[in-house]
Amino acid sequence: MKELFLLDPDLVFLNHGSFGACPREVMQEYQRWQMEMERNPVEFLGRRSAELLAHSRALLAKTLGANPENLVYLPNSTTGVNTVARSLNLQSGDEVLSTDHEYGACDNAWNFVCQRSGARYVPVEIPLPFEAAEFTRRVWAGVTPRTRVIFLSHITSTTGLIFPIAELCRRARDAGILTVIDGAHAPGHIPLVLNSLGADFYTGNCHKWLCAPKGSGFLHVLPQHHDKVHAAVVSWGYSASITGHTGFDAYTGATLLERRLQWQGTRDISAFLSVPQAIRFQAAHNWDRVRQRCHALAAQTLQRIGDMTGLSPVCRDDDFAQMVVIPMPPMNPQWLKDTLFDDYRIEIPVTSHRDRLFIRLSIQGYNTTADADALVKAVGEILESRKGNP
Amino acid sequence: MKELFLLDPDLVFLNHGSFGACPREVMQEYQRWQMEMERNPVEFLGRRSAELLAHSRALLAKTLGANPENLVYLPNSTTGVNTVARSLNLQSGDEVLSTDHEYGACDNAWNFVCQRSGARYVPVEIPLPFEAAEFTRRVWAGVTPRTRVIFLSHITSTTGLIFPIAELCRRARDAGILTVIDGAHAPGHIPLVLNSLGADFYTGNCHKWLCAPKGSGFLHVLPQHHDKVHAAVVSWGYSASITGHTGFDAYTGATLLERRLQWQGTRDISAFLSVPQAIRFQAAHNWDRVRQRCHALAAQTLQRIGDMTGLSPVCRDDDFAQMVVIPMPPMNPQWLKDTLFDDYRIEIPVTSHRDRLFIRLSIQGYNTTADADALVKAVGEILESRKGNP
Repeated sequence: MKELFLLDPDLVFLNHGSFGACPREVMQEYQRWQMEMERNPVEFLGRRSAELLAHSRALLAKTLGANPENLVYLPNSTTGVNTVARSLNLQSGDEVLSTDHEYGACDNAWNFVCQRSGARYVPVEIPLPFEAAEFTRRVWAGVTPRTRVIFLSHITSTTGLIFPIAELCRRARDAGILTVIDGAHAPGHIPLVLNSLGADFYTGNCHKWLCAPKGSGFLHVLPQHHDKVHAAVVSWGYSASITGHTGFDAYTGATLLERRLQWQGTRDISAFLSVPQAIRFQAAHNWDRVRQRCHALAAQTLQRIGDMTGLSPVCRDDDFAQMVVIPMPPMNPQWLKDTLFDDYRIEIPVTSHRDRLFIRLSIQGYNTTADADALVKAVGEILESRKGNP
Repeated sequence: MKELFLLDPDLVFLNHGSFGACPREVMQEYQRWQMEMERNPVEFLGRRSAELLAHSRALLAKTLGANPENLVYLPNSTTGVNTVARSLNLQSGDEVLSTDHEYGACDNAWNFVCQRSGARYVPVEIPLPFEAAEFTRRVWAGVTPRTRVIFLSHITSTTGLIFPIAELCRRARDAGILTVIDGAHAPGHIPLVLNSLGADFYTGNCHKWLCAPKGSGFLHVLPQHHDKVHAAVVSWGYSASITGHTGFDAYTGATLLERRLQWQGTRDISAFLSVPQAIRFQAAHNWDRVRQRCHALAAQTLQRIGDMTGLSPVCRDDDFAQMVVIPMPPMNPQWLKDTLFDDYRIEIPVTSHRDRLFIRLSIQGYNTTADADALVKAVGEILESRKGNP
């Protein structure tokens, strides 16, 4: 399957998780939209864009188990988290409950908003090794009468864990606490039915595990919250009508959510329009099978490297899908990263959580057992070369 | 020059102003960056992006008469205005002085921020016909002890006027009032030397008159204000370092302005990287001469249609460059727009200001006298068909 993607064939690319990778045919669709836009940018952006986006969103909604009218495209999950965090009108003393596994950029967004409002961002510790059965209890123990929001990754970035969030979404709803889920790594990676999950706000990326072009993400908002959400960039959709320019009223969309969030000034919307092609690509290649194969290869590689290091995994087989962290003995993380890339042409991130060091393995459809073998061999040589070193 | 662009050859495209149009070779550069990104997205976005963006910004800065360290790329001017408006920490009672010719999306952004803070957005009337010599006096008459910001378009959207803003920037600085300039239509259209203009905040688009790919804009911030500006999307740059992910610290940039505004989650930065190609394209085609020719054709077309309608222009020859509004007698604006497009394949916006109706003519390098002739002929037939109608 490697030849269906555009990755440098000289690389062992084991970092789908950071920025994704896009198949050739999806990139072709992306660039075809761009060329079509240039034939008449006014018609494309000013008159057709709302309809084109609605059409694209319909298939994404189906894939996510969502209603299209609760969904709007955004460049990425970081934008989604910022949008929601700024919209919630947090008050002094409010608490945003979270974990110590969240993505740093999103921690920054919450800290920024909390500092301005006098609210508190409260990450609870989720210790490693990860105990999925303990997750709900540990998070819920952090709830106080001041908890207004629970913010959780669906799949964590530095530790690759699938957080079992459904029960927390249920309890939070019953308690009148809002749930905001950072699903950056989830779409195309694990099964999603947003309608039954019931998170108040769920943001995700299409450019990671759905393999869409970069800059395609979404925000899903339950209907009762549409009127609470405001755009990071307030634009035409906030007008009752487009004043001074005739014939453009349609382009900001029809619903309140569309009108507020869809038009964010002139930008290339081709990535959003190419999401259906990415969904069709995965369907055409029997992606459920691909995912199973990838998970098995990731699990096997975790095991093989664990056998060499003697370090236990920090999670069970059910706790990850195509992305897993592999514990490494203490060493300089930058040296490890550089050695893997410079000496072995292996692109893999080195992550850390508290005092633990990992390599974070992503296995995507284009990866082969040869890629995994290359990693195992490289790690073996690195461990060997360091024998006796602390 | 038409064949150097990608516009539908069956169209008479007289609306460069709304979304620009991009030459084929600039689009090729844009798509070449996208394909290069896909060879190793981690290296491109995670390790090289800050350096690539700095390189691109250097040439843009030269073109704008700016220092690269005061400049950051954003998707568009609307984002720039939102970013600044949200950053200024407006207080109850503060006034944002503006005009009644501002772009509606930006009016919305200021109104949104003012409503939240208790500040007031105060547009002063700039009557038509436009009297450039009166502009400074009229705006300045609106200054009160509560004026904290003066917000002005450099070139207006619905009326195509070049506002002579330099004197106001000077006076505002002396009075301790901040200036925020919406230069959406200015770069590549009129000469800019941001360092001598001295506006505190200046935002502009590269995808309009510089002919760069859509979604390429910038924000220019004088050094003494860098620490005041916060991103619409708070991301990794707000961390002291990238926690949990080794080897990515460089990608948010080096300076405070870069760190806060440059990284906004994963997105396609190829439009930003293609701005130098757009600048080179214009330089290679002797764009000062192109601009002169375009201005002359716009002025001549204004005159020819004025001779038919008997309506005087609302500005003098010095008050516009390649975009000018042509007064039309009262009629249904949507009907006029539809007739020009459906019956004549002329893409031109119909705009209005208070009770005045206009067609807004843009002449760009790809336009010919035949395009102007087609417009004159169409307007003549439309006027003829309506004779006797009120």
